[in-house]
Amino acid sequence: MKIAVLGGDGFVGWPTSLHLSEQGHDVHIIDNLSRRWIDTELGVQSLTPMDSIQERTRIWHQETGRRIHFHLIDIARDYDVFKSWLSEHQPDAIIHFAEQRAAPYSMKTDRHKNYTVNNNVNATHNLLNAMVDTGVNSHLVHLGTMGVYGYSTVGAAIPEGYLPVGIETMDGKTVQQDILYPANPGSIYHMTKCLDQLLFQFYAKNDGVRITDLHQGIVWGTHTEQTRRHDQLINRFDYDGDYGTVLNRFLIQAAIGYPLTVHGTGGQTRAFIHIQDSVRCIELALENPPAKGDKVKIFNQMTETHRVKDLAELVAGLTDGKVAYLPNPRKEAAENDLVVKNDQFLELGLEPITLEKGLLDEVVEVAKKYAYRVDRSRIPAVSAWTRDIAPTLNADPEGKNLKTVS
Amino acid sequence: MKIAVLGGDGFVGWPTSLHLSEQGHDVHIIDNLSRRWIDTELGVQSLTPMDSIQERTRIWHQETGRRIHFHLIDIARDYDVFKSWLSEHQPDAIIHFAEQRAAPYSMKTDRHKNYTVNNNVNATHNLLNAMVDTGVNSHLVHLGTMGVYGYSTVGAAIPEGYLPVGIETMDGKTVQQDILYPANPGSIYHMTKCLDQLLFQFYAKNDGVRITDLHQGIVWGTHTEQTRRHDQLINRFDYDGDYGTVLNRFLIQAAIGYPLTVHGTGGQTRAFIHIQDSVRCIELALENPPAKGDKVKIFNQMTETHRVKDLAELVAGLTDGKVAYLPNPRKEAAENDLVVKNDQFLELGLEPITLEKGLLDEVVEVAKKYAYRVDRSRIPAVSAWTRDIAPTLNADPEGKNLKTVS
Repeated sequence: MKIAVLGGDGFVGWPTSLHLSEQGHDVHIIDNLSRRWIDTELGVQSLTPMDSIQERTRIWHQETGRRIHFHLIDIARDYDVFKSWLSEHQPDAIIHFAEQRAAPYSMKTDRHKNYTVNNNVNATHNLLNAMVDTGVNSHLVHLGTMGVYGYSTVGAAIPEGYLPVGIETMDGKTVQQDILYPANPGSIYHMTKCLDQLLFQFYAKNDGVRITDLHQGIVWGTHTEQTRRHDQLINRFDYDGDYGTVLNRFLIQAAIGYPLTVHGTGGQTRAFIHIQDSVRCIELALENPPAKGDKVKIFNQMTETHRVKDLAELVAGLTDGKVAYLPNPRKEAAENDLVVKNDQFLELGLEPITLEKGLLDEVVEVAKKYAYRVDRSRIPAVSAWTRDIAPTLNADPEGKNLKTVS
Repeated sequence: MKIAVLGGDGFVGWPTSLHLSEQGHDVHIIDNLSRRWIDTELGVQSLTPMDSIQERTRIWHQETGRRIHFHLIDIARDYDVFKSWLSEHQPDAIIHFAEQRAAPYSMKTDRHKNYTVNNNVNATHNLLNAMVDTGVNSHLVHLGTMGVYGYSTVGAAIPEGYLPVGIETMDGKTVQQDILYPANPGSIYHMTKCLDQLLFQFYAKNDGVRITDLHQGIVWGTHTEQTRRHDQLINRFDYDGDYGTVLNRFLIQAAIGYPLTVHGTGGQTRAFIHIQDSVRCIELALENPPAKGDKVKIFNQMTETHRVKDLAELVAGLTDGKVAYLPNPRKEAAENDLVVKNDQFLELGLEPITLEKGLLDEVVEVAKKYAYRVDRSRIPAVSAWTRDIAPTLNADPEGKNLKTVS
């Protein structure tokens, strides 16, 4: 297949591109390199030393003889350029990662809120619009998020995208309908993924676009089979307060003797998936497209759930780390349960890599190995969800005076 | 109250501004005048001769001694300018009409789809973002649309914004939740109003913004008490294939002896409200704001429903017009029922102007009076919902060869 990977220079986009290239697909990365620009803006960098996309693809070719093509296009801003590209290349599938993906970054200031909405909505809409206008028949696979779901506090399992509800008619009957699971996003970033869902629903209905939406959990892990092939193929690893996900941050905190900082009570439950499984799920989604005219096919792309507090203790146990509790920068429920259905991927053959099994590798091969590159001052979460919360946040960037619990 | 009317130069915005000014409020119109630019783009004009916004506000002052202030600001593009304005003026209420509001225009070409998404999403998000960032405590009243609702085909009455559903928990209980009524938009324009709903929900939850969303039906009628005061205060009346709503188009077709063109079977049922009632509803919404921390308050702003076919026959009966059936440019169900709850406005004292009572005035005072200004060639609907539909549309702009039924 000819496959376009929009955002193929990013944390999941890059290993996905390698994986699909290895399987013999003709992979075209389209990226505006915005993630690298945001590193520059924030003055942070990947823990792992990461080469340019041009250099990475050169190394891939050197190691495997396979070509991954790179096209510098901003799909959110340069609609006409992207449309021409699409029309010329007619990919069989398009994998869409091309969105700003950090909740804290999206809540940083009003400028960052606007950027996230503008970038993400326009990227997705330009893509759909160009697909319809050029008449390409590509299968669109989008990386969504578990964060679109709400009502995880009532104790019901979260289905894969659709909720069956009974609607009472005027003649007293109850008609069953499958509705898009009610959106209840917790940040501007998550909200844009909810907006995406409505765009997808409309274009599937009106134009018959074939769309798969992957509601992904928090991705952990760094290496995949392909990124291990050469030092210069390594994936990025973010640990800063904006882009570092909770597990990465615990790992790096443990590696440098910084307390493992839990926000709030740590009673928040989150869904996780290893990067290798994430890449495998995308492959499975590509192999199982919806038919033209079908509604959007939604998968929950996650393999296990954990309370943040339990994760901290797990990492602390492996590393002799200490846990510290800090005010929560987010406006969210202090505690929530989370049970998620992911039967579809399991039925298609996914065999999950568990945290229990893979976490130690991550401690040794990534966090400890590259700990010399950590900038301690970038670890604290500094983006507050509301003005009231901002003054309560950590003013101890070095993490030296944090009160830890054993 | 100091009230900002965003989009106050438009069809509902203008009479709303006059109405609120007459009641003694300090009214500030903010508008980028895009609706006038679109007239220029399409080469169409209001049936009624309409003055510039500067001239209209001058006449209003001359007739009543009251000032309506006008500020030329594009809230979708000029975030910083709007934020400064908001910070300086601190309005008590903001009425948000500042969106591209025609479904056919939104489906015209890929460029029009992009414009509508971009303009509408950014207008709404910039507004919310600026409200939070400046810390103003304004009540936001948004003009939404009945078109956000779906599932009108199952025979259930449409509630005001929220649908109670039972969600089954893992321990076998059923928990009742009020969810936002599932969105099922029929055009890019309607979809943007569904996106708005999610933006409102998020900002109400995260930041406590007080928001009222008015899900409005098709507005008919031209005059209000205030627009009648002087010829130069007259409201706009659109009859072209993109901006003319179904009733306006029947009226003008009848006035010039053009067949009343029904799209498809005419079995589509739509909700309607008179412009005078629309203005009155906005007043009622302003007087009854939600409290800080409440969820978005949603009203159905409509007073009656009619099948398109019945409307055509009603107008034909009043005017000796003939009805013609044309292919439908829209992708929609051929027939649908529509029963809508609007108890909230009725309980607040709204006394609807019925079509039965008001339609004849509209025929005489507007359609026949200004019929000399009609450009027949602009009447056909030319924007197709999909590529397949486009070739089936009317190629008879003068309407001379249409087959009519008695």
